Amino acid sequence: MPIITLLTDFGARDPYAGIMKGVILSIAPRARIVDLCHEVEPFQVGQARFLLQQSWPYFPKGSIHLCVVDPGVGSARRPLLVQAAGHLFIGPDNGLFTGVLHLKGARSRHLTNSKLFLKNVSRTFHGRDIFAPAAAHIAAGFAPAKAGPLVHDALRLTSGAPLRTGRRFFQGEVAHVDRFGNLITNLDSREYLALAEKGLLLRVGLVAVDRLAASYSEVPPDQPALIAGSSGFLEVVFNQASAAKALGAGVGAPVELEVW
Amino acid sequence: MPIITLLTDFGARDPYAGIMKGVILSIAPRARIVDLCHEVEPFQVGQARFLLQQSWPYFPKGSIHLCVVDPGVGSARRPLLVQAAGHLFIGPDNGLFTGVLHLKGARSRHLTNSKLFLKNVSRTFHGRDIFAPAAAHIAAGFAPAKAGPLVHDALRLTSGAPLRTGRRFFQGEVAHVDRFGNLITNLDSREYLALAEKGLLLRVGLVAVDRLAASYSEVPPDQPALIAGSSGFLEVVFNQASAAKALGAGVGAPVELEVW
Amino acid sequence: MPIITLLTDFGARDPYAGIMKGVILSIAPRARIVDLCHEVEPFQVGQARFLLQQSWPYFPKGSIHLCVVDPGVGSARRPLLVQAAGHLFIGPDNGLFTGVLHLKGARSRHLTNSKLFLKNVSRTFHGRDIFAPAAAHIAAGFAPAKAGPLVHDALRLTSGAPLRTGRRFFQGEVAHVDRFGNLITNLDSREYLALAEKGLLLRVGLVAVDRLAASYSEVPPDQPALIAGSSGFLEVVFNQASAAKALGAGVGAPVELEVW
Repeated sequence: MPIITLLTDFGARDPYAGIMKGVILSIAPRARIVDLCHEVEPFQVGQARFLLQQSWPYFPKGSIHLCVVDPGVGSARRPLLVQAAGHLFIGPDNGLFTGVLHLKGARSRHLTNSKLFLKNVSRTFHGRDIFAPAAAHIAAGFAPAKAGPLVHDALRLTSGAPLRTGRRFFQGEVAHVDRFGNLITNLDSREYLALAEKGLLLRVGLVAVDRLAASYSEVPPDQPALIAGSSGFLEVVFNQASAAKALGAGVGAPVELEVW
Repeated sequence: MPIITLLTDFGARDPYAGIMKGVILSIAPRARIVDLCHEVEPFQVGQARFLLQQSWPYFPKGSIHLCVVDPGVGSARRPLLVQAAGHLFIGPDNGLFTGVLHLKGARSRHLTNSKLFLKNVSRTFHGRDIFAPAAAHIAAGFAPAKAGPLVHDALRLTSGAPLRTGRRFFQGEVAHVDRFGNLITNLDSREYLALAEKGLLLRVGLVAVDRLAASYSEVPPDQPALIAGSSGFLEVVFNQASAAKALGAGVGAPVELEVW
Repeated sequence: MPIITLLTDFGARDPYAGIMKGVILSIAPRARIVDLCHEVEPFQVGQARFLLQQSWPYFPKGSIHLCVVDPGVGSARRPLLVQAAGHLFIGPDNGLFTGVLHLKGARSRHLTNSKLFLKNVSRTFHGRDIFAPAAAHIAAGFAPAKAGPLVHDALRLTSGAPLRTGRRFFQGEVAHVDRFGNLITNLDSREYLALAEKGLLLRVGLVAVDRLAASYSEVPPDQPALIAGSSGFLEVVFNQASAAKALGAGVGAPVELEVW
């Protein structure tokens, strides 16, 4: 029985995620449900896309990733099913799946088969009425090919990609701040480390960081450092302290990378 | 093996819910445990009742709903088992189950059979010592009829029901504020929409809202609207913004509904 | 299939715990995963040790407790596997397991067998790359004896134990503040109640508390009381109010106990 992961902006103070699990288990009693994260900032599709991207590759093939960050619920935006890299992705067609749409062999379908939905579909909670039951039916064996027609214009977010602004200069941004206050940029660490002959210098706000560290614990106290983070991106970090607080930077803050 | 749902005011910073799961899995190793919500405001039985009410109908029959919001733990309040609509409800007899006690065929039992409890019952954590093991034993096949004597006076909360205050006027309150800041009232949307010939007008604080919207995304920016919410109640909402913040209203705030 | 519990300081705003679950289920698809707590204060090993200690005894034998509060990730601190009391404990060797190392028959191993790890081990996320896969392999049947060599010097925290400072005086501290604001000390309630002939008096800040209560609900309003808490320690509590707020005390605050 496949795994169904949940990624939403529902938070913890409401039973919305629990209700989706009730719907899933009513249809697919043996499904394995795993919470990825419910604390996406309300309506922040770009952040959800980023968190999904660093998570799904650690799940086994056949997993179904149910993502509901859905500012357009009840509007004309399509419900989507994406098959890519042996995984399935279900959620609104609003850019959440930008990171997997370009993968070789990826196919997207407009979820139109109402057999997959609850009988009464509200206009305010498609997580419960459309996405959860669709995921559950597919987990229980419903063929994705019958879910709806193929589409070739699923929405891709173009924001959030770094820009080259000079021979040695790149402009990026803080894509996520984790619980420890580490500033996780959208700059692929392998790519820029490969380009660098002497080193990297990253500017965020008024601060320039050029110390490269391999682990948090080797960073000197009260000093920022760059680290090739576990999610594959450059991070600005402190040792046991919050870079976000110390530097006054948050999600969306611009960063400039200089490659030596 | 049945599902056991958990609804508590334990929050996330303590392992109390995790400990209850350890107790459950020690007794019923194959039970499916689903978190409904652990962020009920401390001791807010009325809020828990409201969240339970919008959640349990989405679970399959046979599910056991374990609710521990228990300001009277260790006092004389009874531990209760309610069977209603093919579901089971276990928790303190303090009004949590008001929403199901009136259902046809509902029966309540005073949980007295100590075979259902841990050997040492503390006076401060009945979730761990009484309710979790009782739910687990019943999930594992223990007959509810042997759990304790039937009772006919289980506590029903009378607060929280709207009042008719005139031919076209009803007084209600904000029953819950969800993560998005939507003000969810205790006014049943179907009931009042059926009464309305021309429209609805809802007053909350100094604001009167008469725009009815079908989905959040069709609400104009910076304007409040009424919506028939996914939980069956009238909500005051903004499009991608918090009505609670914009209107300065929270749980318990009175609302007045005018039906045209 | 054994239970794997998770105790971390990862919080809820990141998918780190979800990613660990993906790794676990890729290796041991039938493992039962239970969240104990992810809201340990960042890097607070002592707090995690305390929460672990009150939780693991409620799980069945054979459970694997995966604890990742790891300020030294990427440094020379060892990954550890502890077998004690029929349970397994996996995490960094930084004192997390102080509470079980002294149990009769406890054995610790330095996790060195790289068959237990992901292929690429980062220097910043051993929860994902070392601890989660090791727990999963062991859940799936890998023999602990092959995990690595026995060690006899696993780190034990010495802080956090109360001191006797006079014939009738003991010095302790607030070990944890739970969601309700109860101040949970490191003073074993059974031990000191057994010593007391007439009563107990506990000083915290400028307040002396000598009222002993059996349950929260019998504490008079706006008055502090002592309670023998459900985790086995003396707590300073109020009835439906936060002792932490009322007394301005938090984790680490010193307390003095006088035994009469």
